[in-house]
Amino acid sequence: MTKTNRRKLLGSALASGFLAQAQEPRSLGRPLSGYGERSKFVRPVRTTRVTKTPEAGSSSTPLADMLGTITPSALHYERHHAGVPDIDPAAHRLTIYGLVQRPLVLTMEEIRRLPSVSRVHFLECGGNSGVEWSGTGGPDVQRSYGLASCSEWTGVPLRLLLDEVGLQPGAAWLIAEGADACRMQRSVPITAALDDAMLAYGQNGEPLRPEQGFPLRLLTPGWEGNVQVKWLRRLHVTAEPYMTRDETSKYSDLMPDGKARVFSLEMEAKSIVTFPSGGHTLSSPGLYEVSGLAWSGKGRIARVELTFDGGRTWTNASLQEPRLPKAFTRFRLPWKWDGGPVVIASRATDESGYVQPTRQELVAARGVNSGYHYNGIKFWRIAAGGVVTSADA
Amino acid sequence: MTKTNRRKLLGSALASGFLAQAQEPRSLGRPLSGYGERSKFVRPVRTTRVTKTPEAGSSSTPLADMLGTITPSALHYERHHAGVPDIDPAAHRLTIYGLVQRPLVLTMEEIRRLPSVSRVHFLECGGNSGVEWSGTGGPDVQRSYGLASCSEWTGVPLRLLLDEVGLQPGAAWLIAEGADACRMQRSVPITAALDDAMLAYGQNGEPLRPEQGFPLRLLTPGWEGNVQVKWLRRLHVTAEPYMTRDETSKYSDLMPDGKARVFSLEMEAKSIVTFPSGGHTLSSPGLYEVSGLAWSGKGRIARVELTFDGGRTWTNASLQEPRLPKAFTRFRLPWKWDGGPVVIASRATDESGYVQPTRQELVAARGVNSGYHYNGIKFWRIAAGGVVTSADA
Repeated sequence: MTKTNRRKLLGSALASGFLAQAQEPRSLGRPLSGYGERSKFVRPVRTTRVTKTPEAGSSSTPLADMLGTITPSALHYERHHAGVPDIDPAAHRLTIYGLVQRPLVLTMEEIRRLPSVSRVHFLECGGNSGVEWSGTGGPDVQRSYGLASCSEWTGVPLRLLLDEVGLQPGAAWLIAEGADACRMQRSVPITAALDDAMLAYGQNGEPLRPEQGFPLRLLTPGWEGNVQVKWLRRLHVTAEPYMTRDETSKYSDLMPDGKARVFSLEMEAKSIVTFPSGGHTLSSPGLYEVSGLAWSGKGRIARVELTFDGGRTWTNASLQEPRLPKAFTRFRLPWKWDGGPVVIASRATDESGYVQPTRQELVAARGVNSGYHYNGIKFWRIAAGGVVTSADA
Repeated sequence: MTKTNRRKLLGSALASGFLAQAQEPRSLGRPLSGYGERSKFVRPVRTTRVTKTPEAGSSSTPLADMLGTITPSALHYERHHAGVPDIDPAAHRLTIYGLVQRPLVLTMEEIRRLPSVSRVHFLECGGNSGVEWSGTGGPDVQRSYGLASCSEWTGVPLRLLLDEVGLQPGAAWLIAEGADACRMQRSVPITAALDDAMLAYGQNGEPLRPEQGFPLRLLTPGWEGNVQVKWLRRLHVTAEPYMTRDETSKYSDLMPDGKARVFSLEMEAKSIVTFPSGGHTLSSPGLYEVSGLAWSGKGRIARVELTFDGGRTWTNASLQEPRLPKAFTRFRLPWKWDGGPVVIASRATDESGYVQPTRQELVAARGVNSGYHYNGIKFWRIAAGGVVTSADA
């Protein structure tokens, strides 16, 4: 950005009113508090999508209103199958059994005494952006991309516990089971434990929020959210997966040939322009900062490119450091809007070399019945008046 | 830590109860929500310390209850001089004037259109740990060290705005003024702007919390909190500091010779063991994870050492990556308690080579009347029964 560009924005606002400001009445503000609240002028909330009962459904993070990379825990997306249990941590137990030498039942106090790690990771529902498979496109970031969030998680490396119980020959899967009413069960390849999986009890400095599995959840960074079982109460070590409902009829990807991809756990590189995006209106031509989020289940984001001409030409955005593996990366680019129609989008490349595909490329490979794991490039149309809508609508 | 050590902890909890667990009654949990709350079993709050009115005082982060490095915004420490104003961001203005070529009045919308950055930084009150100067020592981490917190901040680099207004010859100070009732004013060396200062409007993904200056605050990473003026409404560019009340009678350090250090803004390297710490009781001998936080206004933490014998011998703790400049760094060390009395402490070294001093070294250099900028090594005493208290008490 040149100085000239900036001055076209800022020059419109010369100092004129600060003496008037000095005449404002003054009164003491609110007192100190034990646990703070947002300003009454800050209103974004999760939007909810429910099924027949309010206990089963999802709620989406207002990503277009988020700043930086951390998602406030109160706005982390939700996906529940039987509501949010209120678990007393003093009564909670984790049982590890099956193909192990020494089965264990652990209290939360015992888990908290073990060596721990803290790492920033995104979490994304396998069904995030599912509406985009239809080709009509979601109307805004929150409803179409909001089943993804990013937190600093704290917990015990899973490999430490598996080392402790001692795997028997043939141990290849973990069946993780939650303490919610549906006893959510997912089969997890034990390879995750040899990588970076953890049993998390902390989120953004606090204990996990109830909606995120308080007091304990499985975290397998980079994999779809459903497998990262919340309210974790059991790990059954087995030779084969259980083939539960949520890894067969759900959370599997129906391909054009009638077969389904199962255990397609890794969330591939994805990005979304959050400003400007559907629902925004640019108030005037001039300088703006285009911004958004990129992430990949394979590791770090290596590059994010932006197009302002519907995909014909691309230019690199700047990436906020530190770029952490399997975490949101904020990208930004100063941009001068001339007031005319524009079609913008972002395209992420991760450190493995994987490039976020177009919708056309994705559909060519997987058809339109997948439902899950949509990570196509998303285009936003800015009309001459400044109104921003989905370019697919 | 050896496997043998771990098994002494974990071996006491063999699997025995998981079939019984399966008999528990099940009921649906709470439904989805717009803005989440903590578990009813999670209770830490800020402790408040007020003066004659509840609008002037401070509240402390419960650091001993925190996990990882991010402080939840609802628990970020507070220090207010005239309460927390409820500012409508649409009506808020920032005026930059004085020794500049082109004075400016900016709306929040204009500020949000400018190029931005996000960075994780600690914030610490200059008076944090002031009770430690007395030599009797604070009873627990929260009351003695809790005027320090760490957030991901988002905002506009200050140098960008100073470049835009154009500094006149002789410009050397910024007088930052808040929109609270006391119109908090601090004189800030303009060198800060050439380094990493920003005008922050985001905190941990959301807009700033009201207690942290919504909608705009000055952030001068590594400097004492008071200079990082909240509810920022004016930046007056001057040749000399104002010498306001809060940089003369307050927030200056009275030395033994009767002179005072003024503009002693940089917060030097500091660390504190948060577990085990005052108020904790170790329930039994065996394996624990000793953990705590370290930070430095000079940059990254290079090393944290722990002593278990009152300072005679020291051993390196492991440091959580990424170690970010002027940010909390979490340190940890597995440790087996034999049940006997122990005196523990941590000692931080930053990347400049500065080593956190003992209280004796600090007092020898600055006497006991400083009140501010206490960063001495803090010792905790673990008694034979497991009760932890300040070793200075």
